[in-house]
Amino acid sequence: MYVEASRRAELHGDRIFTTPARQDPYPSRLSAPPPKRLLPRHESLAQQISKNGPLTPTQCADFERDGFLFEESFLGADDIALFQQELDRLLSRDAFRGREFTITEPDSAAIRSLFAVHFLSTAFKKLAFDPRLLGRVEQLLGGQAYIHQSRINYKPGFVGKGFDWHSDFETWHAEDGMPAMRAISASIVLTDNTPFNGPLMLIPGSHQFFVPCVGETPEDNYRQSLKKQRIGTPPEEALRELIDRGGIQAPTGAAGSLLLFDCNTLHGSQPNMSPQPRSNVFFVYNRRDNLCTEPYGAAKPRPEFLAHRPDKNWTPIM
Amino acid sequence: MYVEASRRAELHGDRIFTTPARQDPYPSRLSAPPPKRLLPRHESLAQQISKNGPLTPTQCADFERDGFLFEESFLGADDIALFQQELDRLLSRDAFRGREFTITEPDSAAIRSLFAVHFLSTAFKKLAFDPRLLGRVEQLLGGQAYIHQSRINYKPGFVGKGFDWHSDFETWHAEDGMPAMRAISASIVLTDNTPFNGPLMLIPGSHQFFVPCVGETPEDNYRQSLKKQRIGTPPEEALRELIDRGGIQAPTGAAGSLLLFDCNTLHGSQPNMSPQPRSNVFFVYNRRDNLCTEPYGAAKPRPEFLAHRPDKNWTPIM
Repeated sequence: MYVEASRRAELHGDRIFTTPARQDPYPSRLSAPPPKRLLPRHESLAQQISKNGPLTPTQCADFERDGFLFEESFLGADDIALFQQELDRLLSRDAFRGREFTITEPDSAAIRSLFAVHFLSTAFKKLAFDPRLLGRVEQLLGGQAYIHQSRINYKPGFVGKGFDWHSDFETWHAEDGMPAMRAISASIVLTDNTPFNGPLMLIPGSHQFFVPCVGETPEDNYRQSLKKQRIGTPPEEALRELIDRGGIQAPTGAAGSLLLFDCNTLHGSQPNMSPQPRSNVFFVYNRRDNLCTEPYGAAKPRPEFLAHRPDKNWTPIM
Repeated sequence: MYVEASRRAELHGDRIFTTPARQDPYPSRLSAPPPKRLLPRHESLAQQISKNGPLTPTQCADFERDGFLFEESFLGADDIALFQQELDRLLSRDAFRGREFTITEPDSAAIRSLFAVHFLSTAFKKLAFDPRLLGRVEQLLGGQAYIHQSRINYKPGFVGKGFDWHSDFETWHAEDGMPAMRAISASIVLTDNTPFNGPLMLIPGSHQFFVPCVGETPEDNYRQSLKKQRIGTPPEEALRELIDRGGIQAPTGAAGSLLLFDCNTLHGSQPNMSPQPRSNVFFVYNRRDNLCTEPYGAAKPRPEFLAHRPDKNWTPIM
């Protein structure tokens, strides 16, 4: 798996790389069951989270304890309408059909996700860098951030499928080479969350443990995993232990609410059994000193549209 | 499709048959989309429900309006423990593996349902004929009942799949030859219902409309449909209209609660995302003057373990 610096530069062109720490504290995609079901998290959120920023000490403490923070009414009605329109416009663009950054449902041609959305849309790019959002994220990360991934998700009424339990960090570490747990996801729902339309469910406190997963990464695994994840899903016994500790929560609320969650918080969702679609916009912020290196558990990195590697000016490129 | 009386007697032996009404008010399994999405229900619950019985006038009115009634603490703690034990005993009996009445998960060998459970277990037979249960059911049916179907369902933690929206009556009419909407299901949960373990969801008021479904019944459809139903699922537009009218409800509560629902109430469920299994016992009561005839939308009736045809003494046979 070790790849020399010169080889990496050749692979990825003129991008910034940190030296990969090949003593991997977060081994996954293993060929055999690991000796320990749960490994400790090395990055302390208590030390990381800054006192300065828009979030109150209580909100920061909640995020540190649970691995997520839910805020209702983050966006106002005008903004929600604007972004819903923009989402509809993007999802109906014929030019995006059949493109690699367009992910369809496992059993149909319906669009499920559109990636790199801050490249595809000025409105979503502006939202991604909105100081209210970036301020919260950089306070929780305790440092400056860049966008590792962005997407819009659309779960059509009746046919939108769910996701099994998983940690995003597990995939970003194994397949994108993200070294440490210094990334945060922001999900803004553009439709009301109800118990019936497949809202995000999280396991509070699960971010404090890394769950090594069994099964080596197949080539171009993302083509399958973005539809239905099969590799990088935690063993049942580990899930059971973490749910016994922390339970399950599914924050529900009106459109415009913001969910910030740690990159390692286990989450999943159920299918959409309601007639209305469920849609949200999703940005992943990585701390600038946590740049992705070579993948820790895959033969080659995933494409840029899934894992952006910024240039020296931190400008988004694609 | 018409089969003469003599031929029917030959097919099913010494069982009671009413004359089938081949002017079918509830056509389904159609080869082309029907002219109307929703057809009216012909059986009036207001006229059917009796004043005499254990249910209060308010409970009867709720059932009439919603098509279901949820009662917490129907079973006490001792009974719950007894039936849970009995369920575990039945599900682990090697003699039941591979039998036709044993239904496994679509993707695994895990047992999902065990049918004809009042034949397999004295304890469940006693429960099926418990006067508290039968009293409620016969009050709502306005007449004496027999058991059309019985089963236990087991939805294992993490891997138990959901069911898409459907009306049971649609299947019992099309595949079992149940003439009218004079049947009621009783579901008793033996584990707590939570929003995360795939509880039953219902569309209040949907029992007032019959939704014709498109798609002819394949031979031995039950082998597929008991794992994942593909035929007899309502068109999306009809579902949308009924959910717009009545919404969705998922009664949640502690183990031992009873859900009574009309045979035509649309219902479904989500997968079990919790570590704990979800189990329930399920009895279907049909009014004695509503005996099943030839199927209305299939070439031949389903096997006895799915649709019991009682003898002249109303004794269960299998």
